[in-house]
Amino acid sequence: MTIEDLRQAQARIRPHIRRTPVLTSTLLDRETGARLFFKCENFQKVGAFKSRGACNAVFSLTDAEAKPGVATHSSGNHAAALARAAALRGIAAHIVMPQNSPKPKQAAVAGYGGRIVLCEPTLAARERTCESVMAATGATLIHPYNDERIIAGQGTAAIELLEEVPDLDIVIAPVGGGGLLSGTALAVKALRPGARVLGAEPAQADDAAESMQAGRIVSKPANTIADGLRTMLGDRTFAILKDNVDGIATVSEEGIVSAMRRLWEIMKIVVEPSGAVPFGVVREHPDLFAGKRVGIILSGGNVDLDALPWMSR
Amino acid sequence: MTIEDLRQAQARIRPHIRRTPVLTSTLLDRETGARLFFKCENFQKVGAFKSRGACNAVFSLTDAEAKPGVATHSSGNHAAALARAAALRGIAAHIVMPQNSPKPKQAAVAGYGGRIVLCEPTLAARERTCESVMAATGATLIHPYNDERIIAGQGTAAIELLEEVPDLDIVIAPVGGGGLLSGTALAVKALRPGARVLGAEPAQADDAAESMQAGRIVSKPANTIADGLRTMLGDRTFAILKDNVDGIATVSEEGIVSAMRRLWEIMKIVVEPSGAVPFGVVREHPDLFAGKRVGIILSGGNVDLDALPWMSR
Repeated sequence: MTIEDLRQAQARIRPHIRRTPVLTSTLLDRETGARLFFKCENFQKVGAFKSRGACNAVFSLTDAEAKPGVATHSSGNHAAALARAAALRGIAAHIVMPQNSPKPKQAAVAGYGGRIVLCEPTLAARERTCESVMAATGATLIHPYNDERIIAGQGTAAIELLEEVPDLDIVIAPVGGGGLLSGTALAVKALRPGARVLGAEPAQADDAAESMQAGRIVSKPANTIADGLRTMLGDRTFAILKDNVDGIATVSEEGIVSAMRRLWEIMKIVVEPSGAVPFGVVREHPDLFAGKRVGIILSGGNVDLDALPWMSR
Repeated sequence: MTIEDLRQAQARIRPHIRRTPVLTSTLLDRETGARLFFKCENFQKVGAFKSRGACNAVFSLTDAEAKPGVATHSSGNHAAALARAAALRGIAAHIVMPQNSPKPKQAAVAGYGGRIVLCEPTLAARERTCESVMAATGATLIHPYNDERIIAGQGTAAIELLEEVPDLDIVIAPVGGGGLLSGTALAVKALRPGARVLGAEPAQADDAAESMQAGRIVSKPANTIADGLRTMLGDRTFAILKDNVDGIATVSEEGIVSAMRRLWEIMKIVVEPSGAVPFGVVREHPDLFAGKRVGIILSGGNVDLDALPWMSR
């Protein structure tokens, strides 16, 4: 994959997504000792960057491929994004979701006209259920991250960020399955080769950090509030991360919640736990960022307002 | 007062405030049947439009006037805004606050270097305490709303809104003391004379609606979650409202909370109860807004995240 794939994605999805703002805060700059530029994908359509990849994948299909619809398994935001993209193209979306996925995310999928198929909350159950749905319908699988069309779409957020703030020293994005981070890395290494690209993940779901160290994809139990980052890497995303990412840094669970709350309080924006993970990393590793111009991808803003993490702590 | 006063305010405060974005939502447009343009003063410095008026007032003072500092009584956001503006000019700010004002608002004032003087939560106690502080220090009173410098500053939000979206049919802003609404009305009637200007207030604090009907300033008990709108009109703001505002519409307490929550959920922005009042009015009076292009001033975003209104309901 090259920057050309991302450029094509950018042109393809432009009518269907929002160009999100880049926000700054003098107070958070002072608190962190860095100059922070927040790319607000929480304001993206369906409330997450996932709209980018989903639109790119759906609008890449030929008419014949598109006709039977699309299918996927997802912990949430990709599901809503794919349902919306399919509706825009006028085709069906079959969405396999774990039973324990947050209610607002299920409601969002249904609201966009997606057909939800619930399954056990394991990767194996998701994949098995998805395969039987595809067999029954002829739908095309749009994997949440291990798909070049998805990776190219997700990378367009970093392109926009660099268009607005070209002289960044570091770009940091959360890493779960690696779709956003691999797309981000492809964009940054092409457009701003001198900048470092960092992944951010929960310390209690640090499979990406271990995978990078081991040189192979590691799977391990994930126990984190950042529900979007509980997945493991795919072979396509891992191959890109190996060559293009400068490091993965982790943050504690307390650090995620406190970063999320600080963003709400000071920036006045609603960010979901997964979206707050990079800012949490910046706060827990100030030495990595001091004096730098740091682009932070705030990946999404879909939360259950009845179950905010600081309520129960 | 004329639009020229607002233009001068705009030039004077430009270095000290943020040009806030105007956000839209296709989903909320669909839900309300109107086309809504949200002017996000919750992203303003100190989290509220109050920074505009406070900066205009403080930077209007001569050096001799400025030297002994400024003083005010305020339910919150004006207090923080004045403390910040005074700090920018390098002078003292003496802030009289009711004892029951939200802790985050007190912390904000202290954080900007304001000197807080607590008093009983009545208008009479506030004014008395403020006068004794002024007598002791020689500070200049910067009233939260009944002051032409404040009114001119608050009106600059509507100027920016109309610069970005010139063809509005209606502009709606919350009304407490009337500083924001009177400034908004002056801006809209000068720049877009065909547009209607509406005030929005809680049904349980509808003194502005009664005052407009009675033709004189009415004071009545206010019992609303919208803590920024519990104040009564002043003679200067009332005189402007009488001539320039087309009506005041009200919203129930349930409507305020539900509007606030919907803004958080769908727009992914943090808005305080007072700031959600105009959107609450739009939702409770759809007939007034159907098919119209409506500018909504989201006045602020300072809330106590430990005490969200839907938690206790």
